[in-house]
Amino acid sequence: MSKRPLIHRLCIIGVGLIGGSLARALRQAGAVDQVIGCGRSVDSLQRAEELGVVDHYTTDPARAVAAADMVVVCVPLGAMRGVFEQIRDHLAPEAVVTDGGSAKGSVIEDARAAFGELPAGFVPGHPIAGTEKSGVEASFARLYNQRRVILTPVPESADWAVARTRRMWEAVGARVTCMSAAHHDDVLAATSHLPHALAFGLVDTLSRWEGEHEIFEYAAGGFRDFTRIASSDPVMWRDICLANREALARALRYYTADLAHLTALVEQGDGAALEAIFRHAKERREQFLALLEDKH
Amino acid sequence: MSKRPLIHRLCIIGVGLIGGSLARALRQAGAVDQVIGCGRSVDSLQRAEELGVVDHYTTDPARAVAAADMVVVCVPLGAMRGVFEQIRDHLAPEAVVTDGGSAKGSVIEDARAAFGELPAGFVPGHPIAGTEKSGVEASFARLYNQRRVILTPVPESADWAVARTRRMWEAVGARVTCMSAAHHDDVLAATSHLPHALAFGLVDTLSRWEGEHEIFEYAAGGFRDFTRIASSDPVMWRDICLANREALARALRYYTADLAHLTALVEQGDGAALEAIFRHAKERREQFLALLEDKH
Repeated sequence: MSKRPLIHRLCIIGVGLIGGSLARALRQAGAVDQVIGCGRSVDSLQRAEELGVVDHYTTDPARAVAAADMVVVCVPLGAMRGVFEQIRDHLAPEAVVTDGGSAKGSVIEDARAAFGELPAGFVPGHPIAGTEKSGVEASFARLYNQRRVILTPVPESADWAVARTRRMWEAVGARVTCMSAAHHDDVLAATSHLPHALAFGLVDTLSRWEGEHEIFEYAAGGFRDFTRIASSDPVMWRDICLANREALARALRYYTADLAHLTALVEQGDGAALEAIFRHAKERREQFLALLEDKH
Repeated sequence: MSKRPLIHRLCIIGVGLIGGSLARALRQAGAVDQVIGCGRSVDSLQRAEELGVVDHYTTDPARAVAAADMVVVCVPLGAMRGVFEQIRDHLAPEAVVTDGGSAKGSVIEDARAAFGELPAGFVPGHPIAGTEKSGVEASFARLYNQRRVILTPVPESADWAVARTRRMWEAVGARVTCMSAAHHDDVLAATSHLPHALAFGLVDTLSRWEGEHEIFEYAAGGFRDFTRIASSDPVMWRDICLANREALARALRYYTADLAHLTALVEQGDGAALEAIFRHAKERREQFLALLEDKH
């Protein structure tokens, strides 16, 4: 029994880890007829075609979105506005335009600036998934399996567009939730942007420590895990910090205040209070892990 | 060709991850004749014997150290002084007494308080190894392979004692360095105690966030790695924070100042400066990983 796929012509702008994995997963699920890739580097796009991630490619976003019923913009946050400007006048009627940006407020601002009047098919989104690797070579079909995707529809977003975006992500194994962009940006500031800033900050601090070469020699497994996310792409994270600057600064100030309290407890030698914090943190983390495991 | 083992009678006080793994590794290396385990829990010690980690056991440190040529104290930092007091009058002449404590200044202070005059065989040490698990069930022979061990001999430590301690750790695959206790405590504050405080602090901060249940639902792999060390033993880490409080408070204040600077860059939207920090951190981390791999 042959069923018409969910998506006829999928256009991925930015065929990296996020966009490439989505394309692979949709193919594997039999959910798409054709995949057009678009980006700035012909070499990368050619590689994407060789790998079977896309069927065709072009470096021209206007051509890429022609006749596409689903457009997914997976470029760095700093490049969103430029892409929206380039595709604005070339979208098919009833095309869905969604994205994978790690912050939502800035993407919506950029879309408003580029589109003027937002199309009914515009549905901002964010798949909470990824590794510290990047590029189409790193992409894989299972990236989104059991992962969360947050959609932050705007008042202009049509129900049919939200529904189609949701179905796309569900087809690749993800669990979709909707919330406001502001709320998304606060939650992500706390759970993702803040830890990244802390990890980058720690490696940076230690590398300017007196005798720093030695410092790294004695760092062991705990340090490696803790700083794994400091191997993430610096440009992507710069863009995220800029795009989500208010919520992130808020999260940093909140954390810094707690750290000052922790420092005081250490200075005062308050063992009971320290143990309570550590025990509580261990319990919460274990509950969190159990929650994750329940879902697999 | 049968060679006399390095150690005739090894006494491990505190047969957990650290002590248990050392015993297993020394056996595997054919470096020890007999292993006596000592601790507070008969059930744990019985388990250690069943697992073949120790040959015999006792809950009495005085009996445990009798005729032992090598004594390794692997108890929590808060328990060191009590153990030193209990073994003080029962050590064999020319016994080496070493430890595995994560801070050295406090162990030396405790030893001076307990022994009065430190024995020539006293060699404070710290194997930089471990996982967030604990207990003899978690112990394994390869824990120390290619890991660093730091010895912090005191003026009273005899060369023969330092040499035997060094050989013991080298027999289980570790690389041994000597340095002052103060320097050790600074280095460990930076590379280990600080990251643990930061990870515990982050989980604690997020768990008191408004809508915290949701917060954890949207946390993904990066958060899990980053906070892995927040699953460490709260008692052990309380003791480390107390024992190394000066160096740790110094490291926390240093890091907090850097974090304030990072927060300002975020608030000001200084993309270039942020990218420079992130890029530098990624490069340093990658150099650090290459260093580790070279050694394996």
